[in-house]
Parts: sequence; structure tokens; C-alpha cells
Amino acid sequence: MDRDPLPSWRDTPTRAAITRFVERVTGPGGVPLAERVAVFDNDGTLWSEKPVPIQADFLLRRLGEQVVADPSLVDRQPWKAVAERDHAWFDAAMTEHYEGDDTRLNTMAAGLLGAYEGISIEDFEAVAGAFLREGTHPTLGRRYVRMAFAPMVELLRYLEANGFTSYIVTGGGRDFVRPVSQEVYGIPPERVVGSSVALEYRDGRIVHTAELDVFDDGPAKPVRIWSRTGRRPLLAGGNANGDVPMLSWTAGAEPPGLALLVRHDDPDREFAYTAGADTALAEAAQHGWTVISVRDDWSRVFAD
Amino acid sequence: MDRDPLPSWRDTPTRAAITRFVERVTGPGGVPLAERVAVFDNDGTLWSEKPVPIQADFLLRRLGEQVVADPSLVDRQPWKAVAERDHAWFDAAMTEHYEGDDTRLNTMAAGLLGAYEGISIEDFEAVAGAFLREGTHPTLGRRYVRMAFAPMVELLRYLEANGFTSYIVTGGGRDFVRPVSQEVYGIPPERVVGSSVALEYRDGRIVHTAELDVFDDGPAKPVRIWSRTGRRPLLAGGNANGDVPMLSWTAGAEPPGLALLVRHDDPDREFAYTAGADTALAEAAQHGWTVISVRDDWSRVFAD
Repeated sequence: MDRDPLPSWRDTPTRAAITRFVERVTGPGGVPLAERVAVFDNDGTLWSEKPVPIQADFLLRRLGEQVVADPSLVDRQPWKAVAERDHAWFDAAMTEHYEGDDTRLNTMAAGLLGAYEGISIEDFEAVAGAFLREGTHPTLGRRYVRMAFAPMVELLRYLEANGFTSYIVTGGGRDFVRPVSQEVYGIPPERVVGSSVALEYRDGRIVHTAELDVFDDGPAKPVRIWSRTGRRPLLAGGNANGDVPMLSWTAGAEPPGLALLVRHDDPDREFAYTAGADTALAEAAQHGWTVISVRDDWSRVFAD
Repeated sequence: MDRDPLPSWRDTPTRAAITRFVERVTGPGGVPLAERVAVFDNDGTLWSEKPVPIQADFLLRRLGEQVVADPSLVDRQPWKAVAERDHAWFDAAMTEHYEGDDTRLNTMAAGLLGAYEGISIEDFEAVAGAFLREGTHPTLGRRYVRMAFAPMVELLRYLEANGFTSYIVTGGGRDFVRPVSQEVYGIPPERVVGSSVALEYRDGRIVHTAELDVFDDGPAKPVRIWSRTGRRPLLAGGNANGDVPMLSWTAGAEPPGLALLVRHDDPDREFAYTAGADTALAEAAQHGWTVISVRDDWSRVFAD
């Protein structure tokens, strides 16, 4: 007997739904190799996004450095929240965004978008990679590069072994994740799609500007997946309201694709929350998407 | 002895420059597989772009259909030029663009961008694919899907055999080329980067709008290559002024990449022109880029 390809998944209906789907795709009358495309959100789907998304920690530290360099910034948001270690301010910006109110998000974005203005793509790659390799999660104490959900990494390998090509489609920064995507997920940088500041070609170098190019969330996700791959995915994984269009588009194909929604319900091993995921959970219930319970479906959350 | 991988290339210094470069990349102290990225412009580099770019013929026919449906359009550009079969009007728009004047290009673009407003990505794929498979070049009499330069297709295969991953980076429409990229070039749709109208996710479908998303030309090309691949290419091929930033960025790497510039100097077998390529030819001479002469370097231009 072959070794179990999904050892961190308990023997539940969720696991059975995944393996049954993959067997249909790869079996007689299945899907040609070139069309076996899978897409995964990153924050909250492939790694933890609480107490704040990992990239928020990265950018908050940068804003802290800016306050040290220019103390007058301490009276303005988002620098004020950084100086006061007010994580809840940032958390609320994301929750309000998913509820349709972008006021706080825009204030936050203006500060964050400018945080690395003028840096070259090569220097940013080095800074982001070093942060992720050396930084530590504030409550779980693991290195950020060890924060990937072990069952999801197994799922990526299982799909790969079955001829799927997987892409990361993150609402977070594309160029933030790319430096570690191969070592953390086995996904090369060219298969990371995500949000980005506008880049500019200037004197033979490509540099970051302070302008948003794409916020890769909500209805932007299916558009970006098509733009990047020219394919409609067979399988999509997400966890939040911003993943609903990507999951709907995947599930709505003919024959239907597999939509996976990670539910964070394990306060002992990870986190328990539904803020920002309420619409997604309701859509999942209505359309019969496959909900992955961190507590029930995974025998372990992180690699040992 | 192995079969010659480049049978349509004459034994010239151009061919030697290419094979020497590839041998350096793949030899001792060479470049890891994952970093062997090559990028190619499409119109004028991989297939002919005269008397008008193939996509222009596609869009002109569509505009002609619109004039039939609404004869009042005949007094306005670009429909007027279509009704009067005034190819020179379109040709001048491109030449003026490369010379820095976008007045006519903008008038043209407004008409062309709206030509397929509201069409779904699947329907556009079918329409574009059928046009390219059934349409015939106006002076050479070949099917459009047979207009690829045979030596360049051989180069793509030669690079592939040497571990390179090649991308098409076209100033033309990404979704116009994708339906035939695999059969014409052996390049799958996910490795076609190019210009695009903005797409919109609407009621479970992705549709074309009439707004430009990206005009993938000039300094946009290096930015788009990075955005799509997360790599700086080792080798780039182009033919026009709009390819100069991509070629400069590639050639300017450390160690230097290989910049290839196709020179159209064969009026008997293809076309002879330098309009829109003058800056590129001057840059090539100044920086020692490898110029490919259609007349001298290729023993045949098209497949038999």
C-alpha cells in the first residue's frame, strides 16, 4: 500500500470529498493535465492570519522605524496605532472592509503603500524574505516560515502528484510571499498571484511606487486568475468573504469545481473566529461547498 | 551526432551567439533550471506584423461588422478608415506611437477597445481562435496560424530542450494570442503576457469591458515580466522600439543576458521595414545586442 498522502487529515467526510474529487478528475473521462488548475488564498487558508496578518507585522515594524526617524508621525494614523501597539485598530480595518466599510482601510493603506516607496524589487525580495525567515509569530512562537498549515501543504503535494498546477492567489502582497513560496509551499514565485503596489521601470531598475496597482480580493480574484492562467480552476481554497467570488466561480463550472472553505474553530491549536468570514460560511452552507474544520478535520495544524 | 536543433538558421555569427549563450547558461557554473527564463515579443518577433498586425485585421473586420449594423459610424474614425479600406491610417497610428505621438492611436484605441465590450472570456477565446485558424494573411496567402517564423519556433524548442521556460510578452492582446499559443508556438496560455482590456467578474462570468487594463509595451514590459514571473529573464527577443526596455533590462543583468533583435530586411520572403524599429536598431548597435537578419540568418522564414 502507498504511504498516506494526507497524514495530517483525519478520516472525515471532508477528506473523502477531496479525494473523491481528485479521483474523478484523474480517472476515466477526467480532465487533461493542462487544465488541472487549483487556486488557494494565502492568509487564513495556507497560513495563519491572526492576531494580525503576517504582512501587517512586517509593515507595522517598518512604520515603527519611520516613527523613530520622524517622531512627528506619531500623531497620524496609521503611525499612531503602531506607536501605541494598537493591533485592534488594524484588525478592525480588515473586518470593516469585509463588512463593506473601507474608511479605515484607506487610511491604513496610504501609510502601508508608502512604506517601501522607491525600493527595488531585488531589495524588497531580500527584506521580505529575511523578515519571514527570522520573524516569529507573536502568540504561537513559531518562525513565520513555519506557520503554514501542514494539512494544506500536504494537499498541495497531493494535488501536484495528481497532475494539478496550483497557484497562490493572495489578497496580501504578491512580492511579500514570493521570496518564501517555494520553501514554505513548494510553489514557485511565478505561481504567486496577489496584491501589489504599482511598479515602475526606471533607469534599468524596477522599483516600488506608493500607488496601489491591484488589490487582489473579492471579484478581483477570478479576474486575476484568468489574467494569469487563462484557465478556470477546478479547485479553489479560501477562508474569508473576499474569497467568495473565486469560490463561486470555481464551483459554478460545468462540471462543478471543488470549493474548499477553511473554518477557524480551534482556539487551542490555532484561532477561533468568524469575523470577515460570515458571508463565506453562509454561501458554503447554501451551495454545499466543502468546509474544512481546523478542529475536526486536521490531526495536526502545523508541522512538528 | 544529434539532429541539428536549429535547421532553419544559417551558420552565421548570430546563430553562434545564441548557441554560445545557451551553452554558457547550461554548462559548468551556469544558471539553475528555475531561473532560465526567456521572453519574446510576438508581433514582428515570432510572427509577421505587416502589412498590419494580425490582430488589426481581426478588429478591423469586427469594426466593419459594426458599420454594417450602424451605417452612421462611417463618418467617424476608426470606422471611416475601415469602410474605406484605409490600412495606411492604422499603420500610421502605430508608427506615430513609436515616434511618441499617440493622438491617432487614442482615436483608434477607443474604437478597438469597445469592439468586443460585454463578450465573455470563453466566447472571445472561441472567436479569436476561429479567426486565427481560418483567416489568411492578405499578401502571403498563408493561414494566420501558419505565420509563425519557423526559426523562432525552433529557437523556442531549443531553449525548452535546454531547460528554459519561455514567455510571450506581446504588445498585442493577451487573450487574442492565447487560444492558439500552444499549437503555434508550443507555449501554454498561462505563459502569454500581453495587453488587455479590463475584465470584470459579473454574475458568475468574466466579461470584457471597453476600458484598457494594460498596454503592454515599452517600460510596461519589464514591469509585467516581473509581475508575472518574479524573475529577471536571461534572454529576450524583440523587434521594435517598444521592446527596448525589455531588451535593456535583460541585457543589463549581471552576468549580462542575451538581447535578440529581429531586423526585417527581406522583402522577397517577408517584409523590409525599419519604421518603429529605429531606436531599437540604434540601441542594438550601441550595446552590442544580437541582431537577427531575416534575409541573412534564416534559411527559411516560414514552415513548409
